Amino acid sequence: MPVRHVVMFTWNDDLPDSHAAEVSAALAELPHAIPEIASYVFGPDLGIVDGNFDYAVVADFDDRDAFVTYRNHPLHQRFIANHIADKVAARAAVQFEL
Amino acid sequence: MPVRHVVMFTWNDDLPDSHAAEVSAALAELPHAIPEIASYVFGPDLGIVDGNFDYAVVADFDDRDAFVTYRNHPLHQRFIANHIADKVAARAAVQFEL
Repeated sequence: MPVRHVVMFTWNDDLPDSHAAEVSAALAELPHAIPEIASYVFGPDLGIVDGNFDYAVVADFDDRDAFVTYRNHPLHQRFIANHIADKVAARAAVQFEL
Repeated sequence: MPVRHVVMFTWNDDLPDSHAAEVSAALAELPHAIPEIASYVFGPDLGIVDGNFDYAVVADFDDRDAFVTYRNHPLHQRFIANHIADKVAARAAVQFEL
């Protein structure tokens, strides 16, 4: 059963404007290193609607196990530690059946 | 420029367990009625990870105008009034360039 993982972040106020671009550059490396990622798209909010979160990631996996492997992968965990962990004011996530 | 719209909901505690299925049935009607929707997938959280939101919708559009047409469409607004407006404890959304 394919699984779609969706996650959104609101950045802390004190981050530089370059943060989103740094996140996108770091995310772009992960599919090369984590073969369980079947599809990976992400980007900053376009500012069309007030009140949105700042950034979204949508990742597809062939099954739950592939998602869990990605979630626990050392390079994904390093990405979180470097670019997410202490930099988000809010986080929202869902995994659903594709 | 294609736009991906992602939205998540956490339902109010007092909703029946059938609510997510009712939402999915109602959402399934919208692409037939709103031709601006290029792709529409949605579903309840799988329960793999603690602390997630309850439900997600991922919708693709050919451009910003198509997204705004969808957002303002009377059938989409009726869906929100019937199934979302007074039924969510939390909502998170992002639109990003696909």
